[in-house]
Amino acid sequence: MTAADHHPTTRTGIPAFEPARLHFGGDYNPEHWPEEVWAEDLRLMRQAGVTMVTAGIFSWGLVEQQPGTYDFDWFDRVMAGLADAGIQVCLATMTASPPPWLSRQHPEILPATAEGARRWPGSRQHYCPSSPVYRRYAVRLVEQLATRYAGHPALALWHIGNEYGCSNPVCYCDVSAADFRRWLRERYGTVEALNTAWSTTFWSQRYGDFEEVLPPRTTPTHPNPTQQLDYARFSDDALLRCCLAEREVLRRITPDVPVTTNHMPHHKPVDPFRWAAYEDVTALDYYHEPYDPRTHIDAAAAFDVTRCAGHGQPWMLMEQAPGAVNWRARNSPKPPGAMRQWSWQAIAQGADAVLFFQWRQSRGGAEKFHSAMVPHAGTDTRIFREVSALGQELATVGQLAGTRCTAEVALLADWNSWWALEQGSHPSSALSHRETLLRHYAPLFEAGVFCDILPPDRELGRYRLLVVPNLYLLSEQTAERLTAYVRDGGHLFVSYFTGIADECDRVHPGGYPAPLREVLGLRVEEFWPLAEGAEVSLRGELSGRADLWSEAIDLEGAQALATFGDGELAGRPALTRHPFGAGVAWYAGTRPEPALMRTLMDRVREESGAAPVLPGLPPGVQATRREGADGRFLFLLNHGSAPATPALPHPMRNLLTSAEPTTTLTLPPRGVAVLEEMAPS
Amino acid sequence: MTAADHHPTTRTGIPAFEPARLHFGGDYNPEHWPEEVWAEDLRLMRQAGVTMVTAGIFSWGLVEQQPGTYDFDWFDRVMAGLADAGIQVCLATMTASPPPWLSRQHPEILPATAEGARRWPGSRQHYCPSSPVYRRYAVRLVEQLATRYAGHPALALWHIGNEYGCSNPVCYCDVSAADFRRWLRERYGTVEALNTAWSTTFWSQRYGDFEEVLPPRTTPTHPNPTQQLDYARFSDDALLRCCLAEREVLRRITPDVPVTTNHMPHHKPVDPFRWAAYEDVTALDYYHEPYDPRTHIDAAAAFDVTRCAGHGQPWMLMEQAPGAVNWRARNSPKPPGAMRQWSWQAIAQGADAVLFFQWRQSRGGAEKFHSAMVPHAGTDTRIFREVSALGQELATVGQLAGTRCTAEVALLADWNSWWALEQGSHPSSALSHRETLLRHYAPLFEAGVFCDILPPDRELGRYRLLVVPNLYLLSEQTAERLTAYVRDGGHLFVSYFTGIADECDRVHPGGYPAPLREVLGLRVEEFWPLAEGAEVSLRGELSGRADLWSEAIDLEGAQALATFGDGELAGRPALTRHPFGAGVAWYAGTRPEPALMRTLMDRVREESGAAPVLPGLPPGVQATRREGADGRFLFLLNHGSAPATPALPHPMRNLLTSAEPTTTLTLPPRGVAVLEEMAPS
Amino acid sequence: MTAADHHPTTRTGIPAFEPARLHFGGDYNPEHWPEEVWAEDLRLMRQAGVTMVTAGIFSWGLVEQQPGTYDFDWFDRVMAGLADAGIQVCLATMTASPPPWLSRQHPEILPATAEGARRWPGSRQHYCPSSPVYRRYAVRLVEQLATRYAGHPALALWHIGNEYGCSNPVCYCDVSAADFRRWLRERYGTVEALNTAWSTTFWSQRYGDFEEVLPPRTTPTHPNPTQQLDYARFSDDALLRCCLAEREVLRRITPDVPVTTNHMPHHKPVDPFRWAAYEDVTALDYYHEPYDPRTHIDAAAAFDVTRCAGHGQPWMLMEQAPGAVNWRARNSPKPPGAMRQWSWQAIAQGADAVLFFQWRQSRGGAEKFHSAMVPHAGTDTRIFREVSALGQELATVGQLAGTRCTAEVALLADWNSWWALEQGSHPSSALSHRETLLRHYAPLFEAGVFCDILPPDRELGRYRLLVVPNLYLLSEQTAERLTAYVRDGGHLFVSYFTGIADECDRVHPGGYPAPLREVLGLRVEEFWPLAEGAEVSLRGELSGRADLWSEAIDLEGAQALATFGDGELAGRPALTRHPFGAGVAWYAGTRPEPALMRTLMDRVREESGAAPVLPGLPPGVQATRREGADGRFLFLLNHGSAPATPALPHPMRNLLTSAEPTTTLTLPPRGVAVLEEMAPS
Repeated sequence: MTAADHHPTTRTGIPAFEPARLHFGGDYNPEHWPEEVWAEDLRLMRQAGVTMVTAGIFSWGLVEQQPGTYDFDWFDRVMAGLADAGIQVCLATMTASPPPWLSRQHPEILPATAEGARRWPGSRQHYCPSSPVYRRYAVRLVEQLATRYAGHPALALWHIGNEYGCSNPVCYCDVSAADFRRWLRERYGTVEALNTAWSTTFWSQRYGDFEEVLPPRTTPTHPNPTQQLDYARFSDDALLRCCLAEREVLRRITPDVPVTTNHMPHHKPVDPFRWAAYEDVTALDYYHEPYDPRTHIDAAAAFDVTRCAGHGQPWMLMEQAPGAVNWRARNSPKPPGAMRQWSWQAIAQGADAVLFFQWRQSRGGAEKFHSAMVPHAGTDTRIFREVSALGQELATVGQLAGTRCTAEVALLADWNSWWALEQGSHPSSALSHRETLLRHYAPLFEAGVFCDILPPDRELGRYRLLVVPNLYLLSEQTAERLTAYVRDGGHLFVSYFTGIADECDRVHPGGYPAPLREVLGLRVEEFWPLAEGAEVSLRGELSGRADLWSEAIDLEGAQALATFGDGELAGRPALTRHPFGAGVAWYAGTRPEPALMRTLMDRVREESGAAPVLPGLPPGVQATRREGADGRFLFLLNHGSAPATPALPHPMRNLLTSAEPTTTLTLPPRGVAVLEEMAPS
Repeated sequence: MTAADHHPTTRTGIPAFEPARLHFGGDYNPEHWPEEVWAEDLRLMRQAGVTMVTAGIFSWGLVEQQPGTYDFDWFDRVMAGLADAGIQVCLATMTASPPPWLSRQHPEILPATAEGARRWPGSRQHYCPSSPVYRRYAVRLVEQLATRYAGHPALALWHIGNEYGCSNPVCYCDVSAADFRRWLRERYGTVEALNTAWSTTFWSQRYGDFEEVLPPRTTPTHPNPTQQLDYARFSDDALLRCCLAEREVLRRITPDVPVTTNHMPHHKPVDPFRWAAYEDVTALDYYHEPYDPRTHIDAAAAFDVTRCAGHGQPWMLMEQAPGAVNWRARNSPKPPGAMRQWSWQAIAQGADAVLFFQWRQSRGGAEKFHSAMVPHAGTDTRIFREVSALGQELATVGQLAGTRCTAEVALLADWNSWWALEQGSHPSSALSHRETLLRHYAPLFEAGVFCDILPPDRELGRYRLLVVPNLYLLSEQTAERLTAYVRDGGHLFVSYFTGIADECDRVHPGGYPAPLREVLGLRVEEFWPLAEGAEVSLRGELSGRADLWSEAIDLEGAQALATFGDGELAGRPALTRHPFGAGVAWYAGTRPEPALMRTLMDRVREESGAAPVLPGLPPGVQATRREGADGRFLFLLNHGSAPATPALPHPMRNLLTSAEPTTTLTLPPRGVAVLEEMAPS
Repeated sequence: MTAADHHPTTRTGIPAFEPARLHFGGDYNPEHWPEEVWAEDLRLMRQAGVTMVTAGIFSWGLVEQQPGTYDFDWFDRVMAGLADAGIQVCLATMTASPPPWLSRQHPEILPATAEGARRWPGSRQHYCPSSPVYRRYAVRLVEQLATRYAGHPALALWHIGNEYGCSNPVCYCDVSAADFRRWLRERYGTVEALNTAWSTTFWSQRYGDFEEVLPPRTTPTHPNPTQQLDYARFSDDALLRCCLAEREVLRRITPDVPVTTNHMPHHKPVDPFRWAAYEDVTALDYYHEPYDPRTHIDAAAAFDVTRCAGHGQPWMLMEQAPGAVNWRARNSPKPPGAMRQWSWQAIAQGADAVLFFQWRQSRGGAEKFHSAMVPHAGTDTRIFREVSALGQELATVGQLAGTRCTAEVALLADWNSWWALEQGSHPSSALSHRETLLRHYAPLFEAGVFCDILPPDRELGRYRLLVVPNLYLLSEQTAERLTAYVRDGGHLFVSYFTGIADECDRVHPGGYPAPLREVLGLRVEEFWPLAEGAEVSLRGELSGRADLWSEAIDLEGAQALATFGDGELAGRPALTRHPFGAGVAWYAGTRPEPALMRTLMDRVREESGAAPVLPGLPPGVQATRREGADGRFLFLLNHGSAPATPALPHPMRNLLTSAEPTTTLTLPPRGVAVLEEMAPS
C-alpha cells in the first residue's frame, strides 16, 4: 500500500459549534497538573471563551504504562469535564511520541541520521516513520481510543499524530532502507526504469537489483540527485502512511468524526498539498517571530498555502503562541495587541478556528518557557487578559464562520521542485524556495492583492495572473498547461531557473527552459549566477538593481523590458514580455531588488486586470474579504507602526465596535476592523 | 558508593618548606629526555629557585609497560635526585591517561559522545569516567605507587589524576548509562519520584522502570531539561568517584601525606566547591590569554573561586605557562614582565605556590610548542631569565606563606545553576554563566574591592554585600537564607532571571522569581529578552544603555531606580531598590552597559559600607591584602599600560626592593609591589 | 610491498599525434547517451579539432554488470568509432568508482571517517584505499580491459583510476588500521623505533606492540602529531598502491603504452612529486575560479608544480571546464575569451595537451550543470563556438609540441611539511601551506619571473634563487644541501617557521631554526604569532606593514633590513640578509603585506641575477618561453582588464595571426600571443 492508493474523501470541514461561531481554544494537557487544578481549568476556559481544546497529544505514556495495558480512567474524567463545560474536543490519537518502554523493547524503531547515528529517546518523535513496530503499536492504541470515545459528546474532531516530521522528517536506518526499496519497486517496476530515471550511467552507479539500493546516506561527494529527490518523496510518503494507518482505524470506528492533523508552515519535508487530500480539515501551526517586522507577510503566505491545500475550505490555526516561544535562540513575547491582530490575520485569510499551544504553562519539561494562555504568573497577567478579550470578541462574530475567500492571482509552489532545487551541485547554492516565494509574494501582498498559493496541478483558468517563482522542476504536462493558460488569455509571470528539470531531475532537452521556450519567447543559453554580495544594474523601460542570479537570454519573440547594464551580460535581456495567443508571458532572468520587483509586479498585475482588494490602501494595511451566505466581510489590519485611515468605498459597519456604518475609519497600529460590506443574501 | 558518602577531611594545606617560603616550580617530565639530561635539570632547578615539582603525571605507560608488571626503577632515580637536591615532589598518581594496552584489551573503557561515536586513544584521557575497568587498573597502580614511595623524603603531596574532565568530561556509553541508572536509583529511590522530578508527563516521557532511562544522547529535538541537569551532576560525580577511589588508597597507605588535584578555571563540568571538600589543598591551572587586555580580571575571578573553594586556605597555582601556550588558535607569548606580574597576582589573591607547565620544553608530542621554564632555545633566553628571577624573588618573601585574604563582598556562583541555565529551550540562549559572573565581578574589581566567590550554601552573615548574578536555579532554602540575610541587615544585589527554577529545574510556582519576590519587593510578569545587537535605554536616577535582556516588572514595595526609556517596556521598572528588614535588596531586570554597571555597583557597594582595599586607587591598579601572624601585607599590581602612583595611607616598605618605607610609590606597567603594612604581631 | 619498492620508469611522455600537434579534447562518456548520438559526437569532434578523448572513467558499472561477467561490446563500438575518426584514446582503467554490487557484497570496502562513520555508495569513490577487496576486483577488471584493447589503434595512453583521493583521501576503518600497522612495521622495524619517532613518552602513549596502534581517529584532545603525519604519509601511499597495482598489469600486458593519472591542484592528500616517478605523463585537472581575479596566479603555481613533478617534460591538462563548474557554492561561467586564454596559459607553462571535462553535457546526475564542450543548449552556443575555435587554433601550432620551459628561480614545496604544518597544537593555526606558497609565488609571477616549484630533494645548483616559504618540516640533509647551495654562490630566501621540525616532527635541537642558523646567521628565540587582524609596522631599509606572524630574532651574523616598528618586538630584526660563502641568505621573520613582499622579492631576485622573461612587462601580462629543436617561442598573455602593449626586443612573428613579424604588439584583455622568438635550429 502506498499513500497514493488512498482516495481523498469528501472533506467534512470543521465541526460546527452551536450557536455558530469561530472556534477558540488551545492544547490542553491536564496530565501535567494535579487533578484538583482541572476544575479551575474549566472555569477559566469558560471565562476566556474557549470552545475547543486539543487534548491527549502526548498522553500515550500515561494511558499505556505497560505494553497492552490501557488506563483511560483519568482521561475519561477529562473528557467528561470538558463535555459538561460545553467545550468540544479535538482529540489527538496520542501517538505523537512513543513511551520509553517501546524504544527499550524495540530499539530498532529509533531513527538514524544520514551519518548512521541513532536519535535517542528523551525528547519526542524518536521513531522511524517506516517502522512497522511503531505503526503496529500506534494503530493498536488508536483502536482502543476510538472504541472508547466513539460517540462521546465532547468528541468533535480527531487530531492524528502531531506535527508529522517536525523532529523525525527523514530516517536513514536499515528499516527505512528496506521500505525505500519497496517504494522504488512500486514506483519503477523494473530496476532498468530506476536506472534510467536516476541517470545511473553517471559515476558508475548502475544498479543490477533493487536490493543494491540504499538511502542517500552520507557519501564521499555529491550523491545522486534523483536518489535524493526520490528519498524526499519517499520520506514524505512514509510519514503520510503513518497518518493514514491511524486514519483507517478512525474511519472504521467513527466514520462520522472528521480528521485533521497539524502542518507546520513552509515545512520542507511534508507536502501539505498532497496530505490535504486525506484530511477533512486542514490545520496549521504558526509561530510569528515578533522580532521580525515582516513576520506577518511570511504568515500570510503560510495561511494561503494552508487554505489552498484545503481547496479554500475554512481551516484551523491549531497552534500559535499567546506570547513568546522558547525554541528560537532569543524569544520575544508578542507586544500588546500583536496576538490579537495575528489571530485576526488568520481569520481574515480564511481560518474558522484560532487555537494556542497551550492552555496552562508547564512548570517543567522542555517547553516550560513557552508562553501559554494561563501563564506561570497566573491570570492577573497581560497575556490572560488579552486571551480572554479575544475569546470574547470572537464570540460576537459567529456570522463569519463558513465564509470563504477568493483570489484573482495565484502563485505556484511545488514541494517536488523544492526538494530538487535545494540540492548541491547546482549553478548556485543560494537559491531558496521559501525566500524566493516570499520575494514574489511580498510585492503582491504589499499592493493589497489577495493571492492563492497552489500546486501546479490545480485548475488555473480562473486566475487573471499566475506567478511561477523559480519552479526548477516542471513536468512537460505542467508546461503544456501553463502554455495553454496563456494562449487562452492568461497572464503568466515566470522567474529564472524555472522549467529546467523533469520529474526525474533530468534536464529537459532543447535549451533552457525547453518546455516553456515557446510561451516565453526566449532561450536561456547559460546560467550566470552572481557572486555573493554582487549586483548588476538593469536598464530600459524598467531599471534598478538586481542580484543573486543572471542568465544569458536569447530572445525568440519576447521583447526586453530591461537589459543588463553592466557585467559580462551587459546589453542582453534581463526582463522580458511576450504576448502569446490571447495572453502575455513575462520572464525575469534575474532577481530585481524589492522596490523594482514591486514596480514590475504592479505592472504585470495591472496589465492582467487583477485588482487589489481595496484600491488606495495605505502602506502597512492588509485587506481581505470573506463571503458566504451570511454576507460579505472586509477585513482591515494595520501592520504598520503608525495609524492608518483606509478609504472605504461605501459606509460599512465594523463588527468589532458598536459604531454606526461609516466610510472613514482610523486603524491604530495593530488595529483590526471587520466590516460588513454587504448584508446576508 | 556515591561521592556524597565521603566525609571531608580536615584540610591539611600545602606542605611546609624549610625555611618557610612560597613554593616555586613546575611539571617535571624527565622521561621525555635521556637520563643524562637529568643532572642538568637538577642543577638548573636549583639555579631557578625551584622548591617543588609535580612529577609522574603521564608516567603510567612507562612504569607499567605490561599489565601488572611495574618498573619504578627509573622513577626511583628521579625521586632520589630530587630529594638530594632538596626539591619537594608533588607526586602524581600517574593515572591521568591509560596506556594503549589498556584500551586495546578493554575497548569498552573508551568514552562515547552523545551521538554515539567513540573517542579513541592517541591523545589522553580516553576513558569513560564510570568505567570500573579503568578504576580497577588505576587503583592497582596507585596502590603500588603509594607503597613504594610512602615515607620517601621527596614526597610532599599527592596529586591525584590530572585536570579531571578536561578532555573526557561527559561520556554517553552503555557503561555510563548503567552507572547513571544506579545513580538515579540512589537519588530518587522510586521511578515515580524520578518521573515527578523530571516532569515526564511532558512529551510522553514517563518511565515505568529505571532500566528504561538513558543518558541524554542526541535526541530528535530538545531533550528533557532535568535529565540533562542530572546528567551533569552524575558526570561530575563519576569523575569525583575516580578521584576518591585513588584517595582512599592514599589515605590508607600514606595517611599523613596531603592530597590535591588541579582544577581548571571556569570549568563547567567539574564543581570545585564540591570537590574541595575532599582535597587537602586546592589547586588551579590558569593560562592567561596575553592577547586579552582583561585576562587578569578573568584570572582574578578564577583565583577567588579557588581560594573560596578551599575556605580561604592558601592555594596552589599548579600550572601556568612561562610564555605562550599552544592550544589556542593563535598563541601569544607573555610579554616581558607579564609572567612575573601574573604569578604575583595569584599570590596577591592567596596562593602560596606558583608552578608551571612544564620544566623543560618537549621536542615532540602535542605540546612541544607550549612554552616551558627551560625553552627549546635553552637557558640563554628571556624566559629562563625571567623564570629564574622570579624564583629568586619569591625566596625573599617567606613571611607571606600562610597569610590569608579577607573580603567584605561576596558573589554567589553555583555549578548546578550553571548546568541548568545554559540549556536550550530557554527565553534566550545568550545567557552565559561565565560572562555574567565577570560582568558583575569586573566593576567590583575595577573599584578595588576584594571579593569572595562562593557557593550558595556558605555562611553569608559576615559579608556587607552579596551579589547574585543570574542564579537561575535557586532552592527555596537558599532563597530563605538570602531573605534572612537582608532582613538581618545585609545588602543583596540580584540580577535578572534569578530564582526561577528549583533543584529539579521546575519553575517555582507563584510568579517570578517566586521565592525572592518578598525580599526584592517585585514580581516579574514576563521575560523580554532582547534581540542580538538590540539595546534599550534606561532613564531615572541611573541612566544609560542596556542590552541582552529585559523583563516586565511589577513593583510590590521596591522603588525604581531606573525605568526602560524605550522599547515595548518603556516606562516600566528596570533597576530597583527595596529596603527590607534591616537591609536592602537591589534588582537589575536588564544588563546595563559596563559603565552604568560600574556606577550601579559603586552605589550599591557604598550603601552597603563595603570598602575598597585602598581608597583612590589609580585605574588599572589591583590592590589586595594578606594577613597573618607574620604581619599584614598590601599587594599592588599595575595592570595598566602607563605608570601609576597609588597613594599609601602611611609609610610602608616594599619587600621586593631594598628601599626605605615610603608613602609614594610609582609602579611601572606590569609593576608589582608587596608592602609591609604592619609588622608581625 | 610499499610504494617505495617501485622503481620509477623512464618517462615515455605524451604519445605523439601525426602530424605533430598539441592535443585537444575531453572526457567522453558515450554511455550517458543513446547509441544514435555517437555518430554526431564523432562528427562534432572533428569539427572542433578534437585529437584525443579520455574514455571509460566511470564505465565499470556497465562493463561488469555482474561480478566477473564482462560486456565490452558497446565499448568496442566506441573505440572503433574513435579510431575511424582518427581520435586517440586516453583509456581510463574504469576503476574510479566501484559499482553498487561490489559494496553490497563487500560492505567492508566502504571508507570510514575519523569519527567512525561509514561513507556510503551513491556518489563515487566509496572505497577504502587499503581495501584488498577493492584492489582485487579493480585489478581483475584492468586485466580484462588491457587484454581486450592491447594493440587497439585508438589506444594511446592509459589513464589509471581518476583523481585519486578526491573524495576518499583518508580512511580510518579497521582494514586501514591493519594496513597502517603493516606500513609502520615496514617503516620502523621495531615498536621502540616507533615510540622514539612518535615521542610516546608524552601523555603516556608508549606502545608495547604494533598491534596496539590505531589510525588517528577522533581523540578526546590533540592527537599525537607524528601519528597524524605518518597517517598522511600512509594514506598517500595507500592510494598510490592502488594505482601501482593497476600499473603493474598494464606494464605487463601493454608495455609500450604510457600511463598517466590526473592530479588535482594543491591537493593536500596526494604528493604529486612522489607519484610522478611512476607516471609516464604528468596530468592535472584544473578548474579556474572565474569570480577570482587572481585565479590565473593560483593556476600558474599549480601548472609549475605539475611540470616540475614531471621533471620539465610536457604535461597534460587533462580536465578543465569549458565554462562554469557546478560544485562551488556559486558557479560563474568563464567570460568570453577566458577559456581560450587559460588554455593557452597551460601551454605557455609547458602543457602539450588541453582537454576538458566533458564532451557532452549530461542530462542527469550530479554534474549535469557542469559545463561541457557540447552544452545542453547545443552547438549554436558561445561555448561550442569558442571550443571549436580553440581546437582549430591549436592545430596550427604543432611546432610547439615537445618544447620545454626553463627557470632561474625555484620555490620549494614539500607535502610532508604541509602535512605537519597544518596540524593543531602549533603556535598559530593560521599558517596555510597553499596561501603561503602563493604569497611568495605571486610577487615573482607579477614581476614576470618564470619559476619552478620543486620538492626539496631536487638538484638545486642550476637556480640563481631558491625561495623556501615556511617549510616547517625540514630534514638535516635538506638543511645541509641548502647551506651548501648558498656557500656555493646561491641566493636563498627563507621565510618564518621554517626548519623547525625533523622528519618525525620533533623539534630540531639547538635553537630555531637549528639546522639553518648557520646559513641564515640568526637565531629565533620565540615565536610571536599575531592576533587575527593585528598588524605590525616594519622600519629600516625596507618598510611597511606585516601581519600573521612575528618572531624574536637574535642576529648571529645577519644584518637587519627591517626591524619591527611597534608591538612587543619593536626594534628587533624582522627581515634579514646574510652573505654566506659565495652566496646570500635572506630571512623574513614575519609576513610582509603584498606590496612590501613584492619590493623585497624584487630586491632579492635582482641581487641574485635572476631575470624576468621579458624586461619591462606591463602589469597583468604573463610572459613565458618554450624552447626546443623546433625553435624558441615567447608566450604573452594579458590577464589584465585593459589593453597592454609589451615591448619586444626584436621583431617576432605571432603564430596566432597571419601578421608580419613586429616589435610592437597590443594585447586586448584576455589576449594571447605566441611569438616565434627564434627559428628552429
